[in-house]
Amino acid sequence: MNTGETHVGAASIGIDIGGTKTLGVILSYQGNLVAQLRFPTPSSSAKIIEHVLMVYSQLSREAGDDVDIASLGIGVAGLVDTAGELRRAPNLAEADGLRLGEMIGPSLDVPVHVDNDANCAALAEIRLGAAKDVDNALLVTLGTGIGGAVVANGKIFRGGFGLAGEPGHMLVEPNGIRCACGANGCWEAYASGTGLRNLALRRAETGELQGLVQELGGEFEGITGELISQAASAGDEEAIAVVDEYAKWVALGLANCAALLDPEVIVLGGGMVGSWHLFGPKIRGLFEEFLIGSEQRTLVQIKPAKIGEAAGAVGASLLGTVQGTNE
Amino acid sequence: MNTGETHVGAASIGIDIGGTKTLGVILSYQGNLVAQLRFPTPSSSAKIIEHVLMVYSQLSREAGDDVDIASLGIGVAGLVDTAGELRRAPNLAEADGLRLGEMIGPSLDVPVHVDNDANCAALAEIRLGAAKDVDNALLVTLGTGIGGAVVANGKIFRGGFGLAGEPGHMLVEPNGIRCACGANGCWEAYASGTGLRNLALRRAETGELQGLVQELGGEFEGITGELISQAASAGDEEAIAVVDEYAKWVALGLANCAALLDPEVIVLGGGMVGSWHLFGPKIRGLFEEFLIGSEQRTLVQIKPAKIGEAAGAVGASLLGTVQGTNE
Repeated sequence: MNTGETHVGAASIGIDIGGTKTLGVILSYQGNLVAQLRFPTPSSSAKIIEHVLMVYSQLSREAGDDVDIASLGIGVAGLVDTAGELRRAPNLAEADGLRLGEMIGPSLDVPVHVDNDANCAALAEIRLGAAKDVDNALLVTLGTGIGGAVVANGKIFRGGFGLAGEPGHMLVEPNGIRCACGANGCWEAYASGTGLRNLALRRAETGELQGLVQELGGEFEGITGELISQAASAGDEEAIAVVDEYAKWVALGLANCAALLDPEVIVLGGGMVGSWHLFGPKIRGLFEEFLIGSEQRTLVQIKPAKIGEAAGAVGASLLGTVQGTNE
Repeated sequence: MNTGETHVGAASIGIDIGGTKTLGVILSYQGNLVAQLRFPTPSSSAKIIEHVLMVYSQLSREAGDDVDIASLGIGVAGLVDTAGELRRAPNLAEADGLRLGEMIGPSLDVPVHVDNDANCAALAEIRLGAAKDVDNALLVTLGTGIGGAVVANGKIFRGGFGLAGEPGHMLVEPNGIRCACGANGCWEAYASGTGLRNLALRRAETGELQGLVQELGGEFEGITGELISQAASAGDEEAIAVVDEYAKWVALGLANCAALLDPEVIVLGGGMVGSWHLFGPKIRGLFEEFLIGSEQRTLVQIKPAKIGEAAGAVGASLLGTVQGTNE
């Protein structure tokens, strides 16, 4: 019997735990964003459990009585296996080996699903965003670290142990810049947000970027990727040179992935998307230079993520709607 | 009516066109190798068409009247799209753009299938060899160039345009050794048979490998990967150092692929398999060092190809038995 009341109805909660910030959303079954909250990510793994429960509870309150929460999905930066265990998380201190799903599930009365944050973002983009209806795609998020997800034959490809789609630690410059994982020369050390800062710092140390360094009171350490993007947008030639170098590394890594995966579309997410005008065209041009046989290939489209920074959380909220282990 | 005659029955022909040699086989429908022939690969694309027809006709004669040839499969080194066009072939001169299937089909009265040589080898290994019954695998052939094939969810993964699985031109050392494709620092320039020679030449030019160079009358150019393997097997310390460096590059590239694909098994094919005792254990150890989170992962098995150098041709002969475009 229809009572005539307005009712959002069934919805799900998605929480995206990034290296520095956590985003929580409520997504209705019609695909509408009902609420969105942002918190800093705590630094230790013990606190992450409490933290997720706190975010869940705040979102539930936000939802109110009109909304029936049917599931919780958690996206987390790192290697998440098919059982929901966080095997390795270079950008989350002390979280290696954390059995997130097992630890949170018993405290809640809804099913809990855990996946890699980039797999979540990819799920959002193939269901609702830039890769909608694309069968073979690569999604790469350039944030504190680099996340990735492979869409193969219309589904998120998980590989043999659930850990596929992690291009951040592909080595692109042996003996190069030190990465958060401890190795030298990972793609992430060049092409993440941290990488943009690394490239700028390396130049600042040799006397470049004087304007920016002076604004920071002579302190190199204050340089951020965001400041570089702003300076480049304002026409600072040395900042533009950093952006060019950064775009080269992004393109090189994407071409490496494309040689192996032959995607139709590459979707780039993360903070850099906000300055797409600055990065996008450069990355596209250099990608074609780096990809073997690009003159003979059908052009791979490189697009910014459509759902924006909430993609990980929106995709996490969709985890409960995925059948089986290979979507 | 059974006439009592012995009869091999239906069989298919597979031809593997490599950068330097061509191998042709007849495979019975029971999976037995009925015949095998070897020829040098001609240098121009016009001759490749004649060449394939010649190999097919010699194999047909070899088969005799007892065998009904049901199909021809051709494996070729390079980027082969889903229509059987050879888009790019860095190791086959003048063959870019060659529509092999279209050009050979009308001359024969059997169906003709064309695929990348490494996809063929992978098909042989997942049907009959080292990756039998494995759902997620990576096959890499280290020959004149590097070939690759990705097995995803039990099928050969072709990507958006049929060109997936080509790791040879992933850049692993920007500004590094020049590759046959024209770029600098491709994995192939370090980890193929040509790469092994490149690494040895670089050392010989700085005065190393004197024993080997003297045996060659002082001519660096005579150095081959095979000579390095022989010298290393005989205990030559400097040749062993080349093998160590080579194993490092092979392992680095495999780890890059594994970060993206998370395979259960990696199968290595190509000439190097003949000296597996020399290379295999070193590659395995270094692979674990290079792969992100290898301590937290389930161990990826690295195995030599089982079917050996005929894998490409055997797999090509199986192309006619594959349904659809995604196996």
